[in-house]
Amino acid sequence: MSDLHMVVPAGGSGTRLWPLSRAANPKFLHALTGTDRSLLQATFDRLAPLCTAQNLLVVTGVAHATSVARQLPELPERNILVEPFARDSCAAIALAAAVIEQRAPGGVMASFAADHLIADTAAFSDVVRDAIAGARDGKLMTIGITPTRPETGYGYLQLSAPSVAGQRQRVLEFKEKPTHQVATEYVASGEYLWNASMFLWRTEVFLAELAARRPDVHDPVREIARAWDTDAQEAVLGELWPTIPKVAVEYAVMEPAAAEGKVATVPGDFGWNDIGDFETLGELLGRDIDGGARVVDVQGDRPPVVVIDGDGVIAVPCSSRVIATLGVRDLIVVDTADAVLVCRRDRAQDIKKLTELLREKGHAAHV
Amino acid sequence: MSDLHMVVPAGGSGTRLWPLSRAANPKFLHALTGTDRSLLQATFDRLAPLCTAQNLLVVTGVAHATSVARQLPELPERNILVEPFARDSCAAIALAAAVIEQRAPGGVMASFAADHLIADTAAFSDVVRDAIAGARDGKLMTIGITPTRPETGYGYLQLSAPSVAGQRQRVLEFKEKPTHQVATEYVASGEYLWNASMFLWRTEVFLAELAARRPDVHDPVREIARAWDTDAQEAVLGELWPTIPKVAVEYAVMEPAAAEGKVATVPGDFGWNDIGDFETLGELLGRDIDGGARVVDVQGDRPPVVVIDGDGVIAVPCSSRVIATLGVRDLIVVDTADAVLVCRRDRAQDIKKLTELLREKGHAAHV
Repeated sequence: MSDLHMVVPAGGSGTRLWPLSRAANPKFLHALTGTDRSLLQATFDRLAPLCTAQNLLVVTGVAHATSVARQLPELPERNILVEPFARDSCAAIALAAAVIEQRAPGGVMASFAADHLIADTAAFSDVVRDAIAGARDGKLMTIGITPTRPETGYGYLQLSAPSVAGQRQRVLEFKEKPTHQVATEYVASGEYLWNASMFLWRTEVFLAELAARRPDVHDPVREIARAWDTDAQEAVLGELWPTIPKVAVEYAVMEPAAAEGKVATVPGDFGWNDIGDFETLGELLGRDIDGGARVVDVQGDRPPVVVIDGDGVIAVPCSSRVIATLGVRDLIVVDTADAVLVCRRDRAQDIKKLTELLREKGHAAHV
Repeated sequence: MSDLHMVVPAGGSGTRLWPLSRAANPKFLHALTGTDRSLLQATFDRLAPLCTAQNLLVVTGVAHATSVARQLPELPERNILVEPFARDSCAAIALAAAVIEQRAPGGVMASFAADHLIADTAAFSDVVRDAIAGARDGKLMTIGITPTRPETGYGYLQLSAPSVAGQRQRVLEFKEKPTHQVATEYVASGEYLWNASMFLWRTEVFLAELAARRPDVHDPVREIARAWDTDAQEAVLGELWPTIPKVAVEYAVMEPAAAEGKVATVPGDFGWNDIGDFETLGELLGRDIDGGARVVDVQGDRPPVVVIDGDGVIAVPCSSRVIATLGVRDLIVVDTADAVLVCRRDRAQDIKKLTELLREKGHAAHV
């Protein structure tokens, strides 16, 4: 499948994992995989066999371009597309699609986030192949994740009938993050999948949809792509990139296309996890210690954690300091080189507010 | 009063203030006074006017001798008595008494801890003068603190009648730390004072009491004192110090002497505080911040503390790291260069257990 291209948008700072994940050192650069490979590297390892490194592109920001280059030495330099600043997912994915179409017209592309975990790589590859077949048929494909709980932190894909493993189905609608009650109904119905932002399509199909719906994204991106790999690249990028509106690809393209019957999905059930918060991190990568705590070793060594009369403590030591807790319950404690977080577990979704407050108070360097 | 000598035993690691106070950097070396003077320096400032630096002795351990020397440049070097290792308060105070008696026989000595705060220095000096008068009369004097609450963390002095400000009274008994109910009865009766380990006596009176009751402490200490200030000091100290039993001066001398009517007290009411735990530290030196927390600035600068939906949080930043809390209540959070403590406020008396557990687990360097 030499006309198959893989795209990995590597952006976002993983704010709900602050202070572990930082604007300057985001989640995808961390080894949260249980091995010493970062999430980005694990993503590369998973995708490279499907398309070779020559056909794999990473779209990232100026702040992380060098880290991406060093973490993925096998990746050709020209395959690291560097955005001058973030313009949300539609611009990033459109840039990749346009550059691919410019370099190798008529291909198929598949886009996967840089910071997700997948347990069963073989099952993942099978589903990707099924979805690629749909893309070749001209559909805008997505891989939806078979939900295992009424999660309120994800968006959902609504199908026309209960999902069946391995079977391509039409997506009726993209649904925003639901309430717990609505999520429970979704899961019970069997007609909803988690949206994991995995997209597959023929580049010309996607670009045509984008041109029709969002020329304000499409036109500058195509012009930038024409200048890519030439001496004019930097000048054109610098001139046009700032004009591109910030919009998510779901909102700009997938939702309206779904309403017209152009979007389909293959359900995936391969142990997907976005490691979106400390709860998930503790669940996936924690080890229980005496005293009532679960410790996540995100570094190679095991910094000392000492807990007395704890209950439901999640400790994430990211420095060599001691973490000691006494008599506390249902708390997340994260210690890093320049910040300490103490957060009630049921408030973990609000960690973003802390980072906003830090910025407000002039401590942006700690965010 | 050139025959008056002041003694400051500077030992103990202030375990209930871990990780702020450390074995290697104990409470008395810290500036917890609201100024940039350490508790030891503040003690010196308070005592020096009563007796001059020539008559002021500090008894400390090998680990802190150099810090004491640098923090108190006015103190003559020969007035820093260095114990090879800690042998509890009886040995430390007896060594000071014996060295004073050797250097200047027939004097009066007064002993005060290195790590207590006193708000009203003038009132303190007045009470000390009253107590010295009692010492000259041959009594073993102590200054008891008029209790302001039914504190269970202190020992008490039992009087024969309700205490009267400025009036010398006999001490019937030294009482161990009481239960809350007993402490409440003590305070209500007016016949009990807090034991702040402030002692005043003629050195020969104390040494005679010690000789009669504890020759196992008295005899080696007198022999060491005879060798002090001579070439034989180190050899004799090294030979005899290890033989001295570890015992508190209250238990060895004051309690039995009180039973024989030889102990008296002058009640003190001068804003005394031993800053024994983080509760007290927060109360005395904290400042309230938005979000529901009280921050103790133990360093000159103000490290960033950011709190959302907190309630009763005491934050003690001792590094330049950010401390951020979200949704937590009634917690103590202490951040230092090599350890982070998260402790429920009503468990603060048990912090010692954490330090013991750390030692057990091989992390003594963090204690």
